[in-house]
Amino acid sequence: MSGLKISKASLARLPIYLDCLKSLPHSAGEYTSAAQIASALKLGEIQVRKDLAAVSQGGKPRIGYKTESLINDIESYLGYNKTINAVLVGAGKLGKALLEYSRFSEYGLDIVAAFDISEDNLGSANNGKIIYHLDNFSEICKNCNAQIGIITVPCASAQDVCSLMVESGIKAIWNFASSHLDVPEDVWVQNENMAASVALLSGHLTNNQKIL
Amino acid sequence: MSGLKISKASLARLPIYLDCLKSLPHSAGEYTSAAQIASALKLGEIQVRKDLAAVSQGGKPRIGYKTESLINDIESYLGYNKTINAVLVGAGKLGKALLEYSRFSEYGLDIVAAFDISEDNLGSANNGKIIYHLDNFSEICKNCNAQIGIITVPCASAQDVCSLMVESGIKAIWNFASSHLDVPEDVWVQNENMAASVALLSGHLTNNQKIL
Repeated sequence: MSGLKISKASLARLPIYLDCLKSLPHSAGEYTSAAQIASALKLGEIQVRKDLAAVSQGGKPRIGYKTESLINDIESYLGYNKTINAVLVGAGKLGKALLEYSRFSEYGLDIVAAFDISEDNLGSANNGKIIYHLDNFSEICKNCNAQIGIITVPCASAQDVCSLMVESGIKAIWNFASSHLDVPEDVWVQNENMAASVALLSGHLTNNQKIL
Repeated sequence: MSGLKISKASLARLPIYLDCLKSLPHSAGEYTSAAQIASALKLGEIQVRKDLAAVSQGGKPRIGYKTESLINDIESYLGYNKTINAVLVGAGKLGKALLEYSRFSEYGLDIVAAFDISEDNLGSANNGKIIYHLDNFSEICKNCNAQIGIITVPCASAQDVCSLMVESGIKAIWNFASSHLDVPEDVWVQNENMAASVALLSGHLTNNQKIL
């Protein structure tokens, strides 16, 4: 595990490298070079080389990285071998889908509990995870040592839920509401703005709206 | 409707402005200024002013924008008054959630059909939308004039599905698989990389992994 600092952009590229390495055919052999990954992903070789150097010391000149070891190094750097507990607020369709999304465990994320205010949404999800009333948030949040809070409520309630999470000691928030969230400096907000994504997709298709 | 060009970043901010404007209290009065929005969202006033000028001509010096008109101008710029048809491939949990996500209609997006290869996922979603076998993709895709393709399949199948969409005339792809997609220059890919988001969230929490 390297102690080198890494940029947000590099960190976000690591799962793509991982997917690329895992999808290599057996015929590709035991070793993979930064050049091979760069050409497969249409990225700059220097950038890939730099990203990989930050997470793995296994690179050999002219040979590259032992593919299996590089996969392990990236997974360990991304913390896939550890598990971080998360809580989710807003157990509507999107919230339930995330709660039941099995792949998060591969990424070292475990949504241990969900919360809602509507009686219709309380109870347990298909995978047995429990959806509690929001009144119990702080207590359960602390008991299960949740570090990540996932917000899947309507925009109008997003800031209130965010503030509740911050008061309860959450330091990283994954926001699926298309709202701006006010948080203290030591809290990280990762916005997953569906409305913005749709705007970019339609923007590309709409002739009278040119994207620079 | 302005003909001014707009950057991806500005376009992605418009839904945030919209949410901000819609959540203003009645006491805020009839007009809103770029300065008010900038301070509410902790953005630069010049940036907000520039973004709004690209989508609305209604700004008055020292008064600002008539809130209701600005909301209409942004919604019309984002195409919320038109509807773009989309098709979705991969009707697992995430795919079904998106298929049934009612808010997309507010954004001018209508997922008209979904596709899968697993018999278990075929049939109709809770909102009555039909999930067809992937074999029928091209035909149905053309019949319903789909312009956006949404990919919610496992990484290993993402490129194949992407190529099928491109062959079927799709010009904008919303990719929820953490895979790099190879597309022709005239096709836009909007990546929604959950693994990368989780990496950034855990990265913020993991002490031995410092983000620059």
